[in-house]
Amino acid sequence: MFRHVVTFRWNSESSPEHVTALKGALSGLPAILPDLRRYAYGTDAGINEGNYDFAVVAEFDNAEGYLAYRDNDEHARIIQTFIAPYLDSRTVVQFDFND
Amino acid sequence: MFRHVVTFRWNSESSPEHVTALKGALSGLPAILPDLRRYAYGTDAGINEGNYDFAVVAEFDNAEGYLAYRDNDEHARIIQTFIAPYLDSRTVVQFDFND
Repeated sequence: MFRHVVTFRWNSESSPEHVTALKGALSGLPAILPDLRRYAYGTDAGINEGNYDFAVVAEFDNAEGYLAYRDNDEHARIIQTFIAPYLDSRTVVQFDFND
Repeated sequence: MFRHVVTFRWNSESSPEHVTALKGALSGLPAILPDLRRYAYGTDAGINEGNYDFAVVAEFDNAEGYLAYRDNDEHARIIQTFIAPYLDSRTVVQFDFND
């Protein structure tokens, strides 16, 4: 599988309502992106101090599937509406792993 | 599933040999941690600029499985030997997602 991993730290504009709206928006992506084989996201569980606030893990058969996700219009709208205004910082990695 | 996600940025001590050794060490963990249901890790694919260098995604049935992984002695040895000396920065998130 080809994996796309993002961790997010929110700014002070974020709220539980913002995160609920973001999750709702993300939940619609698998239906419109058939190459998105597995998709998981959520708020940090609060077990360890110093963690980031939210993460997304997306799995594809290959890099082409990821590129279709990256460049999808609805995905771009979600980033613009529910992520960018609330973002302090994020980190991103894509990697191939032979499951 | 309960997911544990880490992104890493390496310092100037890191090398391809270091990363190969790290991957080899990580590959032994599922055999000694039965609660580690799914485990993937790898070097950034180089598709996007500004990405971090490496990521780990571990999946467990629940937070208890993650805690057994977090507190495992061999896992601690891997962090001490193959991660800490090469680490510039890392981000961590644990989250529950109802697959």
